[in-house]
Amino acid sequence: MSVILSRRDLEFLLFEWLDTESLLERPRFAEHSRDTVDDVLRLAEQIATDHFAPHNRKADLEEPRFDGTTVHLVPEVKEAVRAFADAGFMAAPLGEEFGGMQLPSSVFGACMAWFHAANVGTSGYALLTMANANLLTVHAAPELVERFLEPMLSGRFLGTMALSEPHAGSNLADITTRAEPQDDGTFRLFGRKMWISAGDHELSENIVHLVLARTPGAPAGTRGISLFLVPKVLVEDDGSVGERNDVALAGINHKMGFRGTVNTAPVFGDGAFTPGGRPGAVGYLVGTENRGLPAMFTMMNEARIGVGLGATALGYTGYLKSLAYARERLQGRPTGVGPDAPQVPLVEHPDVRRMLLAQKSYVEGALALVLYCSRLVDDAASLDDPAAVAEAELLLGVLTPIAKSWPSQWCLAANDLAIQVLGGAGYTRDHDVEQHYRDNRLNPIHEGTHGIQGLDLLGRKVLLDGGAGLGALAARIRAAASRATGTEAGSYADQLASVLDRLLEVTGVVASSGDQQLMLADATTYLEATGHLVVAWLWLEQWLAAEGHADAFHDGKRAATRYFFTRELPKVAPMLDLLASGDRTTLDLDPRVL
Amino acid sequence: MSVILSRRDLEFLLFEWLDTESLLERPRFAEHSRDTVDDVLRLAEQIATDHFAPHNRKADLEEPRFDGTTVHLVPEVKEAVRAFADAGFMAAPLGEEFGGMQLPSSVFGACMAWFHAANVGTSGYALLTMANANLLTVHAAPELVERFLEPMLSGRFLGTMALSEPHAGSNLADITTRAEPQDDGTFRLFGRKMWISAGDHELSENIVHLVLARTPGAPAGTRGISLFLVPKVLVEDDGSVGERNDVALAGINHKMGFRGTVNTAPVFGDGAFTPGGRPGAVGYLVGTENRGLPAMFTMMNEARIGVGLGATALGYTGYLKSLAYARERLQGRPTGVGPDAPQVPLVEHPDVRRMLLAQKSYVEGALALVLYCSRLVDDAASLDDPAAVAEAELLLGVLTPIAKSWPSQWCLAANDLAIQVLGGAGYTRDHDVEQHYRDNRLNPIHEGTHGIQGLDLLGRKVLLDGGAGLGALAARIRAAASRATGTEAGSYADQLASVLDRLLEVTGVVASSGDQQLMLADATTYLEATGHLVVAWLWLEQWLAAEGHADAFHDGKRAATRYFFTRELPKVAPMLDLLASGDRTTLDLDPRVL
Repeated sequence: MSVILSRRDLEFLLFEWLDTESLLERPRFAEHSRDTVDDVLRLAEQIATDHFAPHNRKADLEEPRFDGTTVHLVPEVKEAVRAFADAGFMAAPLGEEFGGMQLPSSVFGACMAWFHAANVGTSGYALLTMANANLLTVHAAPELVERFLEPMLSGRFLGTMALSEPHAGSNLADITTRAEPQDDGTFRLFGRKMWISAGDHELSENIVHLVLARTPGAPAGTRGISLFLVPKVLVEDDGSVGERNDVALAGINHKMGFRGTVNTAPVFGDGAFTPGGRPGAVGYLVGTENRGLPAMFTMMNEARIGVGLGATALGYTGYLKSLAYARERLQGRPTGVGPDAPQVPLVEHPDVRRMLLAQKSYVEGALALVLYCSRLVDDAASLDDPAAVAEAELLLGVLTPIAKSWPSQWCLAANDLAIQVLGGAGYTRDHDVEQHYRDNRLNPIHEGTHGIQGLDLLGRKVLLDGGAGLGALAARIRAAASRATGTEAGSYADQLASVLDRLLEVTGVVASSGDQQLMLADATTYLEATGHLVVAWLWLEQWLAAEGHADAFHDGKRAATRYFFTRELPKVAPMLDLLASGDRTTLDLDPRVL
Repeated sequence: MSVILSRRDLEFLLFEWLDTESLLERPRFAEHSRDTVDDVLRLAEQIATDHFAPHNRKADLEEPRFDGTTVHLVPEVKEAVRAFADAGFMAAPLGEEFGGMQLPSSVFGACMAWFHAANVGTSGYALLTMANANLLTVHAAPELVERFLEPMLSGRFLGTMALSEPHAGSNLADITTRAEPQDDGTFRLFGRKMWISAGDHELSENIVHLVLARTPGAPAGTRGISLFLVPKVLVEDDGSVGERNDVALAGINHKMGFRGTVNTAPVFGDGAFTPGGRPGAVGYLVGTENRGLPAMFTMMNEARIGVGLGATALGYTGYLKSLAYARERLQGRPTGVGPDAPQVPLVEHPDVRRMLLAQKSYVEGALALVLYCSRLVDDAASLDDPAAVAEAELLLGVLTPIAKSWPSQWCLAANDLAIQVLGGAGYTRDHDVEQHYRDNRLNPIHEGTHGIQGLDLLGRKVLLDGGAGLGALAARIRAAASRATGTEAGSYADQLASVLDRLLEVTGVVASSGDQQLMLADATTYLEATGHLVVAWLWLEQWLAAEGHADAFHDGKRAATRYFFTRELPKVAPMLDLLASGDRTTLDLDPRVL
């Protein structure tokens, strides 16, 4: 069994860097201690290793199959989701009032990293259920929570998020699924959804869909969208599953990767079933009518950080596997050594070390980023000072599109390098790295594409809020640079401060253009430049946390920091120059010349 | 049937830019004319469209299967290879003395682009056979040519290149396959090979393996390697196939992509068959003993340009498919337009146009690069002036690692963007782009990995030859910049000249370090920086060729040039700064800290 993730790095990030022990002293997390956190991390590692990793390849090779009635998965998925729920992980992040562990989000993120690294396809079922349950606790009426939450937390019911439709993916404003109010206060839903992960399967007694739909007369666009809970099987007052609801599948999608998580095209209300004797999918309003999208978006930060974490875990496990291969595989000799000398391990070649150190800087940087964001979630939930809570939320807003997109881009790049380290072997199914690469390619697409994250960062989080979020970020970056000034990392502190200054300057140029189209035309470049700056900052943070420790592990942190500052952060300058130039090449492009 | 490649762009490159009509006036190509070239290009397009494209997905889904005796492929592969050979393409690049068409390499490259774009898995069988046949015409004894060439050119026999072994991939110095001389002048081979494309199948009566092996007492390393022709089935004096040779398969490799081309692990001489009553694979020496690697390397330039062409074709076809999708698919509205307005095509969004224009700049830039290199092959074969021939060969040496690696990197990036343009749809097997991405991921690995290309460029082509090759390249770049000075592209000319100056300066710094390990530690970065400079130059060349034409096609050339100079060439500066800095981060890295 190969190592799938680094326990040592998780400990470093949580305890040597993020000072999770002080977090555990706050009232909200007072039931936890270093010991209980260690225990839950070990439990996650063990279940991930024993129940998730072994069928990762099998679930890829034997992808989900739909026979017109039933979705078939490899049986190991059910066992794994069961083990996950039985250990209490479904409820781990929830508050005690909902029967949860009230585990800090940052600790829970570290746990989930194990499951994603082991088998991202299977962990998808758990993740969606938790996101769904979490939303219910915030927005659903008590009687809905009463009926649906406990079975979801125990794994008897699993959940979905049913947003997209065949003609409305990135643009949810255009969804057309109808929800017709009934005399008894319920609704009947009619419409088709698309790209719905875990939309049907036999893993659980029931599937709880959270569905975006329009009520009659609702305003056009995003302000006329409501949120409904639509179970696959209706639930009786005593909690038992009863009649089949009018929810069916039009089919499933066959993906390049991430195959373990079935992706479906569900149909609501087309008469495949007739609950109460007539067609129409019975649904229950969640929250307020026409406020469905904001309700969904309260979960979006965590869902997007979750995508970033999944991307990170895939990058991380690929890195460790390519590292293990490079240490063992003999191939060639160093420059200048004759053919009579024995071959050396791949890791002895500078270009291979470059590919490994690049991966390390991407995957450990990404893990720091997502755990930092999770820690901000914890701070927002546990700090006393309202100003400190507001600052954490502000920062979280700015960092979320980066936490989603940066790992999706760079941990995919890490998987690409992992294949390259293995060479031809990496291109075959004899090794895991090709699957990680295929799996990870989903992450820049779902939960808001890469381009959507750019618009979110620049359009909503930076330009709309008058710079407050960016200012909060800049303050934290400057604080780290100040701490590093005068140390061995002083030149990195200067470099970081200088790139930050330039980003702020360029942001001012972009904001002052007055042309909204031009301001947003290169939002993706803005996202990528800011992302690299943020990860450079988090590498400096890690360098500072490693100070005073001279062992191989901490030397590795310094080497990766050095790598990031010498070879990655310099990539930002041409991006910022482009943004400052107000270039209109793509904006003004006549599509006919393509 | 979707468009798989741009006939218009091929015409532009061959006739508006490379002035192929003047090439056709040279004695070597005098049998050809614009009309015959147009005919052969149309024939390639037609056979690729009718016989190659239709089974591209099928050959991916139903990958080659080995039942212990026989390799099974989908039947369409055989028909396609037959149609290719029947049309005379196997012999097209060969001289008339070998029954070939004596077609210019640049024109033949344009033909092959159609086959690769349609189905790179099937075209692999043809490509290997042609490379093999081409090598035989240069190095094999007349009686071997007599016996094997015609059946290969007619498609009755297909070929392989059997270099790698299980323990020797990038490092051919370590191969151990033995070749024992026999009294009759033949050899008997014993050993295992690995990663051998097209190593077994039922497509042809026979398979002609070109095998690297060592004779008894040969020197260690690359100076003790000889080249042998080893047929799967022995060929009688009358040309008929006779006894089965001692060549068998240990198994086949299951790849992420490029599945149509079976990849095998052949075994020579383990007694699976007993030609002449005893084990040992009968082989015939090709060329001179111990000079096998140089013989193989005489074909390497063209093989590597061929890989670049395949990568280009995959990028190109993905671009065209994502463009067609972006023109049709309605999604969202421009910034600032309300929800009551109708949705617009994807191509109306600036970020989508960015992704399309980026692809265009990569794939058309790559196509220009590989055809330019093929034109140098033609010049070397057809120019009268020995100095001009020498210059063409010098340039070809410098440009070949770039022609192999740049398309492999950036046309894969184009395929990544093609997926992103399609979003979730692009991640499914309902569309071709995910397959192109998987197929293209092979190209940075085979025929010399990306890292090997960097060592070839910097170590062999730049540092070892005293700068002559780089000087020839610089002269051509400066000539283009001079022509552009004072035109609308004047600022690009300045930018190009300035990056070239910096590259030459940095090359001097690297060359003068005196530390061979340090000089080569960042050869990959050197390769990537030089590649971007070269493609920028070729974009300026295309701009110049488009001058005076104001239609959409030529406007597209200008838009892509603008894109490359504003958004791609600036990426080179930090790479060159890194090289100039003599950074030792990866070179000095202690592998234990990874």
